[in-house]
Amino acid sequence: MATRSWVDVRDGSDFPLQNLPYGVFSRRGEAPRCGAAIGDWVVDLAPLLGDPIFAAPSLNAFLATGRERWDQVRRSLTSFLSDPSHADDVEPHLISRQDVTLHLPFEVADYVDFYASEDHATNVGRMFRPDAEPLTPNWKHLPIGYHGRAGTVVVSGTDVVRPCGQRKPPDGLPTYGPSQRLDIEAEVGFVVGVGSPQGTRVRAEDFAEHVFGVVLVNDWSARDIQFWEGQPLGPFLGKSFATGISPWVVPLPALEHARVAPPRQDPEPLGYLQTTGDTALDLALEVELNGTVISRPPFAGMYWTAPQQLAHLTVNGASLRTGDLFASGTVSGPDRDQRGCLLELSWNGTEPVQLADGSSRTYLSDGDTVVIRATAPGADGVRIGFGELRGTVQPASPGGRGTPAR
Amino acid sequence: MATRSWVDVRDGSDFPLQNLPYGVFSRRGEAPRCGAAIGDWVVDLAPLLGDPIFAAPSLNAFLATGRERWDQVRRSLTSFLSDPSHADDVEPHLISRQDVTLHLPFEVADYVDFYASEDHATNVGRMFRPDAEPLTPNWKHLPIGYHGRAGTVVVSGTDVVRPCGQRKPPDGLPTYGPSQRLDIEAEVGFVVGVGSPQGTRVRAEDFAEHVFGVVLVNDWSARDIQFWEGQPLGPFLGKSFATGISPWVVPLPALEHARVAPPRQDPEPLGYLQTTGDTALDLALEVELNGTVISRPPFAGMYWTAPQQLAHLTVNGASLRTGDLFASGTVSGPDRDQRGCLLELSWNGTEPVQLADGSSRTYLSDGDTVVIRATAPGADGVRIGFGELRGTVQPASPGGRGTPAR
Repeated sequence: MATRSWVDVRDGSDFPLQNLPYGVFSRRGEAPRCGAAIGDWVVDLAPLLGDPIFAAPSLNAFLATGRERWDQVRRSLTSFLSDPSHADDVEPHLISRQDVTLHLPFEVADYVDFYASEDHATNVGRMFRPDAEPLTPNWKHLPIGYHGRAGTVVVSGTDVVRPCGQRKPPDGLPTYGPSQRLDIEAEVGFVVGVGSPQGTRVRAEDFAEHVFGVVLVNDWSARDIQFWEGQPLGPFLGKSFATGISPWVVPLPALEHARVAPPRQDPEPLGYLQTTGDTALDLALEVELNGTVISRPPFAGMYWTAPQQLAHLTVNGASLRTGDLFASGTVSGPDRDQRGCLLELSWNGTEPVQLADGSSRTYLSDGDTVVIRATAPGADGVRIGFGELRGTVQPASPGGRGTPAR
Repeated sequence: MATRSWVDVRDGSDFPLQNLPYGVFSRRGEAPRCGAAIGDWVVDLAPLLGDPIFAAPSLNAFLATGRERWDQVRRSLTSFLSDPSHADDVEPHLISRQDVTLHLPFEVADYVDFYASEDHATNVGRMFRPDAEPLTPNWKHLPIGYHGRAGTVVVSGTDVVRPCGQRKPPDGLPTYGPSQRLDIEAEVGFVVGVGSPQGTRVRAEDFAEHVFGVVLVNDWSARDIQFWEGQPLGPFLGKSFATGISPWVVPLPALEHARVAPPRQDPEPLGYLQTTGDTALDLALEVELNGTVISRPPFAGMYWTAPQQLAHLTVNGASLRTGDLFASGTVSGPDRDQRGCLLELSWNGTEPVQLADGSSRTYLSDGDTVVIRATAPGADGVRIGFGELRGTVQPASPGGRGTPAR
């Protein structure tokens, strides 16, 4: 098998032959449908493969078919794009990425967000519970998580309106208005293809039978709203206004060469959370704010892995559905320039982050653009990329639909 | 207009002419479709009204049409069922409720659970934070809520498998196994028909433009799992295994006569949470365990109302979607026999609840059946009922799918 496509893929492209991620695209005036990315091109899958499952405006039906079919399609695509004898068949179905709009790649069923970085959880604990142990007593025994709002998951490129809500100054009454501590969280998300029945559980070792692929996630967060509302039931409006995901779902087989051993866990977790082998993923994330890279969070060091999260999520018999998305929580490493959110990077607003244009930020300003990227080692020595997860902050609309802000 | 249907409806039926709730039913061997309840009958809506929107296996498409259409259909149905001259047209489309299976009435988009009873929140605070104020400082300023798992919302009659998970004894390490504190929460849920765009908000006074109707909710809870996992991000596996809802969605107009003034709020809430008029609902709930009524929670006294919850839910610009469900949280009144969960009724297991069969319960045993009912004042002096929300506890399956419990 060739290690390069006959399609012209520039060196360093996020989308070499070894990647082949899936998304949903449209050309002007045409209905959205499923495609795969190769270099700067989108492959129009339904006509190329003769399979109407890809004519749908979401990947869900394909995701539901299961691993055998996923592997078949990947083999077909790899063959079409590596063997030059197929060029005449494929070329009519290659569309320049410049000519398409990318859409949310799948309908999100339930969205769960974990809290799996020890460095992130420790930093947050130090800031907000300075007199206590930074990690809560449960943290090393189970992957802490919560449900987010599936309906506000948006694709890269969607502007984010600064949310309004209640926030309370330390020595005053709560007030209503635009969040003054708008933040991002750089995360990695896992997309469920094959569901599971209610009342059963999914074992960590069955991860690849259920999880189709990986996206980048930006869990936009309004820290002032979040911290006032958050007790006793956790985050709600501080998170529910928007969650960004990257437009291309990178299938698990593309990340086979990125698999690494997870960090050692002490204490040893309970049986249903025990795993063996290379269950972590060596993804190198990058967070850019207005053109300045402000952080390079390493995903390989996350304390809890995605297979552990899947096993935990279902250990109580909760069902999985096609389109479920579960994210890692903020990816932060031990170093200062590896922190995945401004809360940590600015140490809750006390240490401004310098940008290349001479300005600085504690939290986000209106008009700011955040881009999250990631790469991973792929087959044949190439890098697997995720494409951009981009979002720009739009000013708040405190009155909303005609209601005055008070 | 007649105040009784020509259909034979026994006195005290949950489903008089003034109710006409919507659900999804099937007869053996037939596909699920939308119906309305009248007495002991189900009206097969698609053929009667000649509208294929009701031939679908969920109410979602009808919910999305909006208030004008909702009102039209209700007027048509009322006319068909009150005017005896329509009897010949209607009778072929009346099916005995004994002959049908009831299904989940709508596809749940996002599920949010609030915490709106002051008595419930105070009792929980007293039990778990005995040295602090029972209510957290934010509680009277905003309706506390969180997102639950939409994919595990099930219709009445669905058995609930006792969940497994981690729980930690006070002076020991966490262990894995079946929950030993399985509980119910009697709640009232609101079903969103018409969505709203991301980045805008919905005012409390626009409640009836967006909310279609009301169901009963049983938010099954595993207290031991919930309390070990719950810090710092709130409930997750302690709740996500199952949430029951009643099969009939009672439309808001059926509850017009149940509207009452909400309790006075002190402090006065911020502007976006201020409402005027009769925004509360006088629903009388009843919780039955193995045939013994163990509680009669009054919904009218809830501190935060559903219109306030809707305004809060969207004040940050979160969109609404057709099929969103938001529930009240446990409905508890000030009296002991008005508490809506066993956690409160048994005061965290210290005061067993006596049943008519001579047994007692702190939390639920395998085989226990819980039924939640409610009635409300309707037009013409009748009572509006919700039907039963029933669930039976099945034994845990600690190994799940072949994985031994450890």
